[in-house]
Amino acid sequence: MRMVDVIEKKRNGRELTKTDINEMIEQYTAEEIPDYQMSAFAMAIFFQGMTTDERVHLTTAMAASGDQVDLSGIEGVKVDKHSTGGVGDTTTLILAPLAASVGVPVAKMSGRGLGHTGGTIDKLEAIDGFDVELNGDTFNRLVNENKAAVTGQSGNLTPADKKLYGLRDVTATVDSIPLIASSIMSKKLASGADAIVLDVKTGAGAFMKETEEARELARAMVDIGNGAGRHTTAVISDMNQPLGYAVGNALEVKEAIETLKGEGPDDIFELCLTLGSHMVVAAGLTETTEEAEERLREAVRSGSALETMKIFIAGQGGDPSVADNPEKLPSAAYKKEVTAAEDGYVASIAADDIGTAASMLGAGRSTKESTIDLAAGIMLQKKIGDPVQKGEVLAVMHSSTGNTEEAEAKISSSYTIETQQTKPPQLLYDVIH
Amino acid sequence: MRMVDVIEKKRNGRELTKTDINEMIEQYTAEEIPDYQMSAFAMAIFFQGMTTDERVHLTTAMAASGDQVDLSGIEGVKVDKHSTGGVGDTTTLILAPLAASVGVPVAKMSGRGLGHTGGTIDKLEAIDGFDVELNGDTFNRLVNENKAAVTGQSGNLTPADKKLYGLRDVTATVDSIPLIASSIMSKKLASGADAIVLDVKTGAGAFMKETEEARELARAMVDIGNGAGRHTTAVISDMNQPLGYAVGNALEVKEAIETLKGEGPDDIFELCLTLGSHMVVAAGLTETTEEAEERLREAVRSGSALETMKIFIAGQGGDPSVADNPEKLPSAAYKKEVTAAEDGYVASIAADDIGTAASMLGAGRSTKESTIDLAAGIMLQKKIGDPVQKGEVLAVMHSSTGNTEEAEAKISSSYTIETQQTKPPQLLYDVIH
Repeated sequence: MRMVDVIEKKRNGRELTKTDINEMIEQYTAEEIPDYQMSAFAMAIFFQGMTTDERVHLTTAMAASGDQVDLSGIEGVKVDKHSTGGVGDTTTLILAPLAASVGVPVAKMSGRGLGHTGGTIDKLEAIDGFDVELNGDTFNRLVNENKAAVTGQSGNLTPADKKLYGLRDVTATVDSIPLIASSIMSKKLASGADAIVLDVKTGAGAFMKETEEARELARAMVDIGNGAGRHTTAVISDMNQPLGYAVGNALEVKEAIETLKGEGPDDIFELCLTLGSHMVVAAGLTETTEEAEERLREAVRSGSALETMKIFIAGQGGDPSVADNPEKLPSAAYKKEVTAAEDGYVASIAADDIGTAASMLGAGRSTKESTIDLAAGIMLQKKIGDPVQKGEVLAVMHSSTGNTEEAEAKISSSYTIETQQTKPPQLLYDVIH
Repeated sequence: MRMVDVIEKKRNGRELTKTDINEMIEQYTAEEIPDYQMSAFAMAIFFQGMTTDERVHLTTAMAASGDQVDLSGIEGVKVDKHSTGGVGDTTTLILAPLAASVGVPVAKMSGRGLGHTGGTIDKLEAIDGFDVELNGDTFNRLVNENKAAVTGQSGNLTPADKKLYGLRDVTATVDSIPLIASSIMSKKLASGADAIVLDVKTGAGAFMKETEEARELARAMVDIGNGAGRHTTAVISDMNQPLGYAVGNALEVKEAIETLKGEGPDDIFELCLTLGSHMVVAAGLTETTEEAEERLREAVRSGSALETMKIFIAGQGGDPSVADNPEKLPSAAYKKEVTAAEDGYVASIAADDIGTAASMLGAGRSTKESTIDLAAGIMLQKKIGDPVQKGEVLAVMHSSTGNTEEAEAKISSSYTIETQQTKPPQLLYDVIH
């Protein structure tokens, strides 16, 4: 294989073979293909796209480029869940114990976050004693015993994807559906789950602004997952405003606990029931999502979801009493209100800007080396469609330093208030099998 | 300027500014922009093209990336001539003295060749004593005195183009009209001529197989040249079979001398009259090409074209007596015939294969370090439309070693002979102003 021929083939719109793609990814991982050829190839894909077969080959080749997690020691159909990212997205913290409480084995590898708030791993560290660095044996044992464990990514997963992603970032080849889909799915395949439920966000606060784009990405990922032999489903959900009310690390853990008690925000609860029911079906525990959803609701009503959360926390060395006493979570010294400048109805909330404001307050990392303030963040008080009066509280900032001016301005400008009431956005758009 | 933004702009089909392009080429030349960004950019151009303004900016930026030849010491409108390359293309050897003989100042920088035969510089070295390494002062003085001088490229001309061309070659981004046109024209601009006459080849033996492609390339180069303030004209001519009969270095010099005497092949003579008449008009010596052509014909008839050839040769230290005694040129020890295997008419001659055969005989270089056998080459005896009888000579191979088997097979297979007579291909397709 000569890489220049592979580039030309793709450039001319012809389909690459499995061998073409496997050899290319092997040689790229081994530094035998230079970046300047790979970036030209990525740009050719931007224009010519990839067939489903090509996408499956690329994704499996990238998954095979490094370590692959072996979950065969865990009983049952292991189900992974992945979100394409948004602001205030607490679903993993809720779904791991919720799905586990009805018998779905949730073996979740998760990352730390670069961005608005930390990743799931950072959020869990808000719980005193919680250990997110499990070795493989402990991880498998905990999933077998408790049905849920979450660990940080270790080892050398998908090095080809890491290299390619870094290159795409500086060569204007990020926003290509086949490349986005194969990047995400390569990590999912390498993480070892048997089935995958995807939460693809759409709207002003998401990478995919338009529902049609989100649907296309969802279709691409589902086809890759199924093509690679993993049962894959995608839900398309709204990110026109932050999900729930909490944006921050400890704040989101608290919101997750409330949701597991049945006392959380409606939008988060509804989204978790939808994602969770697809996880239950994927695990083969019920035939229909209706039946699955009923089981999940019952687990919340009966308290078994919250009980599973405690077992999950205790299993990883954390203090399970936070579930009953969320005030034990880190708490910020300063709480400052952001108030409305006029009467009316909330017409929109720029989710990106809310995320940026949370990061300004210390909830996120700007570089890999930054430390996160686990207590910092924002509690929204008003969402789209809510009536507000001048001087009424829109959001409360949680800060350890009291230095909130910049964040306050950001939050203020992220809200638009109009005299006519806007209907809240639809939460769920589609399910792709 | 961030290169990733420039790539994205082009990828999205938006027009780049002069500043975008100038900064990009400056930084690329200074190694501040990595190859992996430039190759992604080149692929984006492959798909999105460039506007005429962008092409002019790119070409002038590449021309300005290194040394630029100053021909201001030469009187008159200096005219350069460039061919996009073909087999048996002896036109520069003829045109330099021919145009000079009617008063056009021809200040020609030329290269050595990689490929079938040497470049113009190599061919001129077949003349005993001929010096192709002139310094700037000598070069200018000779053009002023003799109206013609040819020198090898010296200095650091268009380093940005050299880098980009090398990169395109390994990233499947060679065949893009804007990139081909700007690469050629950047060298022309840097070489300092006031006016440029281009000979764009089309047909089976040319880079541009289809006349429409050739026309598009010609249009692109003419627009760049005129946009950069140089009077530019392109002639589109045939390369469905080798031009003339000689393919080789000394052999082509001999054919050039014959043509200047009015005894050369019709196709070469006609093409030289056409290109030459555009040079005469570009130099402002006549109003019309018809008038110009009549002057050129008269220069041949009167012997002044041949006389100018002798002065040109003597000016550069060569032995002018070769013009009267071409047998003084290097001559090969072995002359072997390639004969027809059947009766019929020549239907086609694969020009590429004839070139390859000439190279096998030693007329070309396969690497920069190879030495050229100046005496080696091929004299065709039959061209398209000619009747042949079985056993009749199609071509004569000139070899210093007698090792001609491989070349003979190549020449034999390059001829197709059919029972129906084929019309010879049209020589000239179009003129683009």
